[in-house]
Formats: sequence, C-alpha cells, structure tokens
Amino acid sequence: LSITRPLGFRAAATTAGLKPSGKPDLALIVCDPLTPAELRAHGRPIEHRHSAAAVFTQNVVVGAPVEIGRRWRATQSRGGQALRALLVNAGCSNAATGEPGIADAIATMKCVGEGLKCSTDEVLPSSTGIIGHRLNVGKINAAIPGLIGALARGEKADEAAASAIMTTDLVSKKAHREFELERHQVHLGAIGKGSGMIAPQLDSAGKVVPHATMLAFITTDASVEQPCLQIALEEACRGSFDRVSVDAHPSCSDTVILMASGAAPVRTIHRHDPEYFAFKAALTAVCQDLAQQVVRDGEGATRTFRVEIRGASSETAAVRIARAIVDSPLVKCAIHGKDPNWGRIVTAAGNAGVPFDTNDTSLSIGGVEVYRAGLPTGVARNDAKLLAAMNGDPVLCVLTVGDGTGSGWMIGCDLSDKYVRINADYTT
Amino acid sequence: LSITRPLGFRAAATTAGLKPSGKPDLALIVCDPLTPAELRAHGRPIEHRHSAAAVFTQNVVVGAPVEIGRRWRATQSRGGQALRALLVNAGCSNAATGEPGIADAIATMKCVGEGLKCSTDEVLPSSTGIIGHRLNVGKINAAIPGLIGALARGEKADEAAASAIMTTDLVSKKAHREFELERHQVHLGAIGKGSGMIAPQLDSAGKVVPHATMLAFITTDASVEQPCLQIALEEACRGSFDRVSVDAHPSCSDTVILMASGAAPVRTIHRHDPEYFAFKAALTAVCQDLAQQVVRDGEGATRTFRVEIRGASSETAAVRIARAIVDSPLVKCAIHGKDPNWGRIVTAAGNAGVPFDTNDTSLSIGGVEVYRAGLPTGVARNDAKLLAAMNGDPVLCVLTVGDGTGSGWMIGCDLSDKYVRINADYTT
Repeated sequence: LSITRPLGFRAAATTAGLKPSGKPDLALIVCDPLTPAELRAHGRPIEHRHSAAAVFTQNVVVGAPVEIGRRWRATQSRGGQALRALLVNAGCSNAATGEPGIADAIATMKCVGEGLKCSTDEVLPSSTGIIGHRLNVGKINAAIPGLIGALARGEKADEAAASAIMTTDLVSKKAHREFELERHQVHLGAIGKGSGMIAPQLDSAGKVVPHATMLAFITTDASVEQPCLQIALEEACRGSFDRVSVDAHPSCSDTVILMASGAAPVRTIHRHDPEYFAFKAALTAVCQDLAQQVVRDGEGATRTFRVEIRGASSETAAVRIARAIVDSPLVKCAIHGKDPNWGRIVTAAGNAGVPFDTNDTSLSIGGVEVYRAGLPTGVARNDAKLLAAMNGDPVLCVLTVGDGTGSGWMIGCDLSDKYVRINADYTT
Repeated sequence: LSITRPLGFRAAATTAGLKPSGKPDLALIVCDPLTPAELRAHGRPIEHRHSAAAVFTQNVVVGAPVEIGRRWRATQSRGGQALRALLVNAGCSNAATGEPGIADAIATMKCVGEGLKCSTDEVLPSSTGIIGHRLNVGKINAAIPGLIGALARGEKADEAAASAIMTTDLVSKKAHREFELERHQVHLGAIGKGSGMIAPQLDSAGKVVPHATMLAFITTDASVEQPCLQIALEEACRGSFDRVSVDAHPSCSDTVILMASGAAPVRTIHRHDPEYFAFKAALTAVCQDLAQQVVRDGEGATRTFRVEIRGASSETAAVRIARAIVDSPLVKCAIHGKDPNWGRIVTAAGNAGVPFDTNDTSLSIGGVEVYRAGLPTGVARNDAKLLAAMNGDPVLCVLTVGDGTGSGWMIGCDLSDKYVRINADYTT
C-alpha cells in the first residue's frame, strides 16, 4: 500500500532503457483531482482543489529537475498551478548538465503534459543516477504514451513505480499511514529511493537551508491549502529525512514531493485548524518510515545505529553533534565490527564545532553507561550487556553533554567493505 | 636523519609494555641547551636560550597530555620555561580520563624531571592509542631510568623513537631539512606518527582554532625567540598538517611540538628578521614532508589525491571546498576504484557550505578537463589520458569555482576495504 492508496492517484512504470541493467527505470505518478462536476456532486466548494509542495537538496550543485522544481515552487506563493504529474527516472540524474539539461527535462515534461492534456507547468521531473550525463529524451518520450496508457491504481502499480526509481537500492521503499478526519479515513502513501549519497538536508521554500540522492514522493487524498502543505512537508522532513545519513554526502538531486488530491470527502485543512496537527503527525510518520528504510538499505550497510544527544544548548547544537557522530568513518567501522570503542563516539562529538564540558558529559550504549561525567565507568569491553548492545539493530547511543534543554537525534548505518566495493566500481 | 640531527638533542626508545603487540612504545626526546659556560666559550650572549612551541587538536574532547601542553603553552607568553624533554607513548592515549588522567601524566613527567635533573614543568607528555583507558604509570616510570641511560644522538636513536610512537602506522615517519644562516648549516629534524583518526586542524596559542591523532615532534638547533617560534609553527601547520585528511575525524590528541636548542653557532632569530622567513620556509617544508608521509600511510590507503581549488572568494572558502571533497567517502571510493566519476567531486564541493556559481565552475583531473563552465566537456570515461590520470599518485584534481583570488588545497587518500577491516577490529 503506498502512493495509489489515497484516492485520486494513479501510477505506472516501464523500462525506457536508461539503466545499463535493462531494469525498469521510468515511473509516472498522476494526481486526478475532482472535476468541478465531481465537486458539485460531492457537495464540496469549488475552491476545494488539489495542491502540492516540495523540498530539495541544499547542495550548491543541483540537477536540472531540482532547478525546475524550485521554479515551480516559487510560483506557489502567488497561486501557481498545483501538480498533475511526476515523471521520475533512474539511471541518469541530469545533473551538472547546465541549460541543455534543463531543456531536456522540459521536453519530457511537455510530452507528459500533452499526453495527460494538462499544462507543462503541472508536471515535474525527478531524476537519479549518474551525474554529468545528458538525459536520453528520445528514449523517455518514446516510453511516455505507454506509461500513460498503463496508469493504474493498486499495489501492483505502486510496486512498479517504487522499483523503477531504484538505483543501488536492494529493496523498494514504500510507506502508508491513515488518520481519521470527520469520521473518514484520510490516507497518505509514499515511495522513496536511496542507498548511497545519502545525508539529506532539505531546503525550504523560504530560504535554501541544507539534504542526498534521496527521492521521496508522497500522496494524500486530504485537501490541504498549499502554503500549509509546504510548511507541513518542511517540518516533517526536519524530523525524518534530515535525520538520516549513510555517507555524509548530500546529493545534487535530493527531492521530496508531496501531492494532495483533495479527493477524500473532507474539508480543506488550513494552517491553524486542529486537523493540521493530525495531518502533520501522519505525514511525519510516513517520512520517518521511508527515511528509516533508506538508511537501513544504505549501501553496504549491515546494521543501523541511533544517536541521541541530550542536555545541549539547543536542538540545532544537539543535531550537529549527533551528525558528527553518525558521519564519523571510525564510529561507523566500530558499529560494523560490533566494537564498543566508545572513545570514537566521544571524540566525534568533540569535532562537531559545538562547545561542551567533558566534565558534564556521559555516554551510554544500549543502556550501559560507559562514560560518566568525563570519566570511564570502567565497564569492561567484553561486558555481556555491552556486547549485546553492540549487536543490536539499531545500536542506541545516548550522549548527554550538559544540562541544557536541547536534544536531537540522527540515525546512521555501519561502514562495511561492501560500501567500498559498491562505490569503487560504480561507473567502470 | 631526523630529530637528533640538529645539535643539542638526544633520543631513546624502549618497550614499557603498553602495546599489546609487545613492540616498543615509549620514546624520550631531550633538548640539551648550551650551558652558561658553553655560551661564554662560544661567545654567545647569555640570553641566547632554547625555546619551544606547540599546537594541539581543536577537538572539544582532549587527552590529558593536550590539557597539560596547553597549560605549559600559556606560560610561554609570560616567560615560562622552555622544554627539556618530551615523553611520548603509544598504546594508550590517556584521553577521556579526566583529572585522574592528568595526575597520571604528571607522575610520569615528574619521573623524567627527576632523572634529567630538571623541573617537571620542563617536560611534556604526549600519548596516542586507545581512548578511555588509564595510563599504566607503573610501567612507564619503571622504564624511564633505562630510557634516560640510553639517550643518544644518531640515526639509530631517531629510528627507535620514530618507531616507538607508531600505532597503526605501517612505516615510521622522519623528515629533515637544513638551511644556511651566517654561513652555518642550521638543521631541522622531525618524527611523526599518524594513520587513522587523521584530519588535523591545529589550534593556536591565541585562540583555539581547528587538528587527528597525529603526533609530530620537531627539533632545530636554531635559536628562535619563543613568540616567534610559536607563530612560525602555527603558520607552518596551516600549510601542512592542516591540509591532510585520512578520515575526517580530528583526534583528541593531535599534537605538534617544536623545540629549538639554540646550539647552532648563529644569532637568535626574531619575528622581523630576514632569517625568520628562511627558518619558516624550512620548517614548513619539514611539516609538509611529514604530513604527506602521514596521508600516504593512511589506514588502508593505496593512493593519495590532491585537490586544488581556484577562483574562490578567499583561501578559507577554497580550503573548505577542498576539505569537503577529500573527506567525501564517495570521492575516496572513486579514487580507490580509479573511477573518473567526477560528478562526485563537483557535488562534494557543493556541500561545503560555500556558495559558488556552477556556470563559472570547471574541473580537470590530471590536466584533463571533464567539466567546463557548468557543462560536461564530453571526455569519455574510458579516455586514455583520463584513465592514466586516475591511476596517478597523487591524482590531481583542480576545481575552479569562479574568478575570485582565493585558492587552497588539501591532500586526501582513497578509502579501501582495508580501512574498514582495520577499524572494525581495533579493540576487539
């Protein structure tokens, strides 16, 4: 159950021939909002419409789809059109391709628009794969009529779309949540991909703040006012995709797009409605579910670990410390080797650029305190409980760095020789 | 030829029993300044004295020796005593050990001071090895009389000291330079260690600015006024140790200590003397030599790569971009696999937190331009010249990010499955 579980969405996937492997590589997700006639028939106000929101990487170098997505997003605050379709390909990221890359992407958007009889502006592209290669527009546009013809609802369509957007992913990623509104079940569905080049730090519509190629596409049949949808998405990303890292290298293509069809028979959600919080909670849960699937499928990863920081001066400081820990290759190798070498965790924290007093610093791993108020507790490295904790998945590390009220967390994965093999032989 | 090549230094090493391997693990470097009688006999002013300078890690979590070293350094601006001896051990870093760790280190300093008949304040300790373990003071102090008895000049003593401070290093690290002053040869010698937890970003006496366990001990028979010696060392580190990274994880113990014996029959160097620049150039060359040996011996490293950034707004911005590139696991794996996957280099640059315009950005690898003004140049991935460049050591990457005057460089090493094996099994 994922993207076509919410009412008002269809999906399809095919093999356009972009992946050298010959596997499916092109997916289309379409939003079918209620027509004016349907709105009238359902007794809904005519201004009840579909909406969409998006966040992108904060990398200075961005793929053409990100550039196009940002332009689309900028139109939303002045009443720009919502999205009817997302065209997602794997095998080529269309990044570092300049203006020609943008023209290529627009040519595919135009083809989808013509097929769906909507405006080009109602279509967004999204691409993942090798950087610095031109998109094969010919192959994509040749595949689009077939894709449109195959659009369908149901698990088969969801799985086909989720699989087509995979690159080094070993498993496809899908999530689903539902919540009750006015005695109706409102649905959220999502597909995502990501395995390497994962350390998402997503931007916001207001300012470009920090996100890897991680792609996530979320659908809901709620009706949500656009500015409110955008804010909900940004907040949900802060507590989900931004909190996972596989290899500390945010991609040029990280993208999360949320489409609300408004097809559920409930009223439109605005920012200060009590329903907003129920919606945001369900959205955050979907994002966290996908984000965890991504880090669990991190390239070469065998296990994950969760770092919680407490007692920092702010959440930002806490997350910064947590990020320094999950991104340290030495910590990641220790997790891989199930080695309770906690000095690496403490010193990684010390590199975060956030001051703290080691005399007020304590660390526990899986509930076993190994460092308290700046001193080793003396737990033996072969302590049974500690070894059991190091064998956990996730391994839970809680680091207290003072008595501040700031806390934060990050989820990382171990670094294995398989990661090296995958990435030493990616293009050759 | 290294630390005892300059006049006025002796060294020795022994096995105190700190390394589980049973290899030598304790070294002593002693400075023998000219006595008042010798100064008179040489016709040198009595205020011509020996001096010392030091820089340490900027990690928030520091080893007891770093804490003690900083306290010593703080006394230098108010005429504190120079150093007579450095006691360096491998096998235990005496870090994350709080006040008891400091007391342990002082007990060893005291033992050295008694043996050499100098003050405890004229001795500094330095430690590398496992974090979070107490130092075995009994074993160290039992070994000190023998060490003092064995102090000697010459290549054998240098090599013994260089070997005793190794941890995961595969080769010992020594460097030597000489320059002419008043028709005399003045010498600089150095030993160093470092292989993992290497991304030195050293502090300065003025402020704690950013340095891994990388240890380097430098000697010279020049006579250099202390504040001038400290500044020369800080500037030399900026252009050497701070420009190398193995694994982006600065250690809690990074230390560089420079001792000047003043034993060469030349006048004392002050900051604004023309001789200062000759001294600093030779010092920088020694530091660069050692730093390159460290990154070349990076854990699991098979090759190194050098990233040069040009056209940035400042040197700081340029170095920040270069650091983001050398520290990206994806770039490091591409170097390992000799894979010209240049999109990883460009996107790593885009994550540095430094804005630049991709339309003004170009990248060449070993002189082969792969990306020009935001567009791929179309060089085939199997281009013979490009493949030859990827097989180089170092692989040279030159990234131009605009038309600013800021430039900077970093040297990194590849990430191999051997790095993972070394660090997954470090303590267990």
